[in-house]
Amino acid sequence: MNQGWNERQRPVRLERRLEFAEYEATRDFLDRAASLSERLAIYPDMSFGRTYVNITLHAEDDATEVGEALRQFAREIDALLKTEKTLDE
Amino acid sequence: MNQGWNERQRPVRLERRLEFAEYEATRDFLDRAASLSERLAIYPDMSFGRTYVNITLHAEDDATEVGEALRQFAREIDALLKTEKTLDE
Repeated sequence: MNQGWNERQRPVRLERRLEFAEYEATRDFLDRAASLSERLAIYPDMSFGRTYVNITLHAEDDATEVGEALRQFAREIDALLKTEKTLDE
Repeated sequence: MNQGWNERQRPVRLERRLEFAEYEATRDFLDRAASLSERLAIYPDMSFGRTYVNITLHAEDDATEVGEALRQFAREIDALLKTEKTLDE
């Protein structure tokens, strides 16, 4: 249902856009992502509406690429989405 | 700590930016705002990071001003912030 992460420059960042069928699924995802933020102490910029979430992981100020900690965060976000899918099956 | 709502044109919308001392307060506010969305069936566009939240309430497509339902939502957001402040006192 969703495309993967895009790595972009100026500023260096990873981005992913997610779409959900309804607000309940959006809110459930946001709750899980918030718990992940607290666990990993990484707080991405996120924007959302009723049925979408955009996530942006900004590299540290002088970095020329996105570091491993943020890539790990991105993989854990992906894992949350798989769990969600399993719950629906 | 925070300024009030700004009404803007093209597109017609109400916006407010909030800042918080720490992520825990940001997350608490987001949880309350999500419950408000479910209660009023109004789902603003929101963006946030560790210590800020931006809220945008878009008027309906052909409206020339923001309607009463969205203004009520905005007032209830303000009320959430007052409750939060009380808890801190």
